[in-house]
Amino acid sequence: MQQGRREEEVLAAIERRRRRPHVKLMDERITLAHGAGGKATHALVETIFVRHLSTPEADAAVVSPVSGRLAVTTDGYVVTPPFFPGGDIGELALNGTVNDLAMAGARPLFVAAGFIVEEGLLTTELERAVRSMAEAARGAGVQVVAGDTKVVERGRADGLYVTTTGVGVVEHDLDLGPAAMRAGDRVLVSGPIGDHGMAIMVARGGLELEAELESDTAALHELVAVLLAAVGPRLRCLRDPTRGGVATVLNELALAAELAIAVHESAVPVRPEVTGACEILGIDPLYVANEGKLVAVVAPEAEEAALAALRSHPLGKEAAVIGELRGDPPGMVLLETGFGGSRVVDMLAGDPLPRIC
Amino acid sequence: MQQGRREEEVLAAIERRRRRPHVKLMDERITLAHGAGGKATHALVETIFVRHLSTPEADAAVVSPVSGRLAVTTDGYVVTPPFFPGGDIGELALNGTVNDLAMAGARPLFVAAGFIVEEGLLTTELERAVRSMAEAARGAGVQVVAGDTKVVERGRADGLYVTTTGVGVVEHDLDLGPAAMRAGDRVLVSGPIGDHGMAIMVARGGLELEAELESDTAALHELVAVLLAAVGPRLRCLRDPTRGGVATVLNELALAAELAIAVHESAVPVRPEVTGACEILGIDPLYVANEGKLVAVVAPEAEEAALAALRSHPLGKEAAVIGELRGDPPGMVLLETGFGGSRVVDMLAGDPLPRIC
Repeated sequence: MQQGRREEEVLAAIERRRRRPHVKLMDERITLAHGAGGKATHALVETIFVRHLSTPEADAAVVSPVSGRLAVTTDGYVVTPPFFPGGDIGELALNGTVNDLAMAGARPLFVAAGFIVEEGLLTTELERAVRSMAEAARGAGVQVVAGDTKVVERGRADGLYVTTTGVGVVEHDLDLGPAAMRAGDRVLVSGPIGDHGMAIMVARGGLELEAELESDTAALHELVAVLLAAVGPRLRCLRDPTRGGVATVLNELALAAELAIAVHESAVPVRPEVTGACEILGIDPLYVANEGKLVAVVAPEAEEAALAALRSHPLGKEAAVIGELRGDPPGMVLLETGFGGSRVVDMLAGDPLPRIC
Repeated sequence: MQQGRREEEVLAAIERRRRRPHVKLMDERITLAHGAGGKATHALVETIFVRHLSTPEADAAVVSPVSGRLAVTTDGYVVTPPFFPGGDIGELALNGTVNDLAMAGARPLFVAAGFIVEEGLLTTELERAVRSMAEAARGAGVQVVAGDTKVVERGRADGLYVTTTGVGVVEHDLDLGPAAMRAGDRVLVSGPIGDHGMAIMVARGGLELEAELESDTAALHELVAVLLAAVGPRLRCLRDPTRGGVATVLNELALAAELAIAVHESAVPVRPEVTGACEILGIDPLYVANEGKLVAVVAPEAEEAALAALRSHPLGKEAAVIGELRGDPPGMVLLETGFGGSRVVDMLAGDPLPRIC
C-alpha cells in the first residue's frame, strides 16, 4: 500500500510540474527563500536578473578570448539612500566600476555583480536597481556577465548592497600612474566637484535646501578615450575622485610620487549650490565624493590640448586646470588661496560623509 | 600675522608628515573611518590587505594578457558564524569562487575580493579572514589582484560580508553543461555530502552534538583537472552542490536537459555524524550545502575511469556513482529507496538553512 501510494504521489508530482508555469509571479518583498538557491531564487533570477541583465545566475560565464593586458577592479556599494537625485545604487555600481577601469586606461569589457539584499526589501526596488544597472551597462557598452544574490535577515543589511567587479582590456603601452608624474605637470579636473556627495546629503534630508542637487554619476571611459587620443603619452595619470574627493586623490598621488601638488583654490570648479551646501555643513568640497569626474595629470606642454579634449566631450565641458606638481615639499598637497596664502590639504582623517557610495 | 601663522602651520605640518611612520598601528575595532577612503582606510589596507594579499586597494589592477576563452564568476558570502569548524568566510569565499571557475572547466587565474564590514568588528577578526583567504589563494595558485573595503554602521551588516569574483581561462574545447547530457549518463559525487551545512548548524549552537563536524571547504580545480585528463569529452557536466545541496543541482540539471535523474539512495555517501545531525533537525542531507564536493555527469562508458580518477585525488577518495540519467519523466529527480520505491526530490521551496555560505 505504502509503495502504491508513493508511486501515485510521484505521478501526481510529475503532472503538477509539467503543468506549472516555468516562473511564478514575484512576491512583493524579498524573503530569505529568495537567497536559498531553490525555487524562489530561480523565480527571482528569471524575473529580475535574466529579464533585465540577461545574466543567468550560473556557476561561471564563459566569454570570448581577449587580447591585451587585462585590468581588474572590484568595489562595494553601500550608498544610503540607495535611490537619490540623479541616480541609484545600480547605476552607481556599474558606472563606478567602468570608471575604475577607465582610470587604468582600460576599455571596459564586462562586469560581474553581486547583490546582498536585506529581507523585506521591496521587490520593485530591487528590480529598479537592476534595471538601472542594465541601462547603465548598455549605455557604457559593457556586458553584465555574472551575478549572484544573497539574502540576509532583517537588520543584517540596509536594503541593498552591490559589489561590482569589472574586467577591461588595456589597448596601449602607457603605464598610467603616479610614477610617471614629474614636477611641472598640470592637474586637471573634468568638471565641477562635489555634486555626488552633496546630492546624497540632501537626499538624506539633513539639509533644508531649495537647491536642486543631482549626483554626477556617469561612465567616463569615452571621455578618457578622447583625452588619450589627444595627448597620448603626455597623459601621466588618471584618477576618479570618489570617496574622500579630490583632496584624497591628490594626497595619494603626491605621496606615491614624492612630489608636491599645488592647487589654486580659485581655479577649482564648484557649483554655487554645492558651495552653499558645503558651507552649511562645514565641509570642504575638495573632500566630497564625485562619481562622474576625473582628475588628470598631464605634461606641461599638453595642458591646452588636454583641456580642449576634455571640453570637447559632454562630460568634460566644464573641465579646468586646477594646479601643478612641484618638487617640494614631497608628499604634500597645498591649497593656494586668494591672497597669496596657502594651507595644507591633508588626507581625510575621519569620515564626515559615511556611505556616500 | 594671519598669513605668517598659516605659513608656520604649513611648515609644521610638513615636518609632522615627514616624521610620521608611514602606517599607524591598527585600532582594536573597525570604525566608519576605515571605510572613508582617508588615512584610516590607508592604514587598514597597508596593515591587513597589502600585508597578507599584497593587494593594494587601487582603482584597477593590470594583469598579463590571457589567451583562451575567459570564465567569470561572482559570489557573495554572508555565512554565519564567519568562523566555523573547518574554515572561515575568507577561505570559503576564495575556494567557492575557485570552484565556480573549476565547474566551468576553467583554470582559475585571479580573484577580486570586496569586503563589507560592520562597524565594531574586531580588527583581528578581519585580519584572520583576510589571512585565511590569502592562504587559500596560495594553496589554489590564484592571485588576489583587486580588493575593496566598505564599512557600514553597527546593525547594518553582520560582522563581515565578502564578495569574490574570479576570472579563469578555459584551455579546452569542451562545452561542459547540461546540454551535453544524454539518457544513460552516470552521476557521480566526489565524496560524502552535507558536511559544510551541518558544520555551520553545529557552530550556530542549535544542536547538542558530540560529533565533530567540519566544513569540507576546499578548492576543487585540481580534482577537476585530474577528471578531465582521465575522461576528456566523456565528461558532460560539472556542478558544485553548494546552496541547496545535491538535490538542487540535480533538479537544475534535469530541468535544463529535459531529462530525468534517478538517484540510488543507498549509493549516496553521507558521514554517519551528518546523517545523525540531519535526522535531529529533520533535514534531508541531499539539500545540505557542500563547499568541497562536485557532482559530475559522465558518459556511461566513462563511469569507471571517472570514478578511478576522482578516487586517485585526496579530495575525491570517497567518490561514488549515485545515479543515472533517464529519458522520462523529463525535468524530474527521483530518489530510488531501498525497497524498490521512489520519491520525487523536488527543488527546495523555502530555506531551512539560511546564510550557509
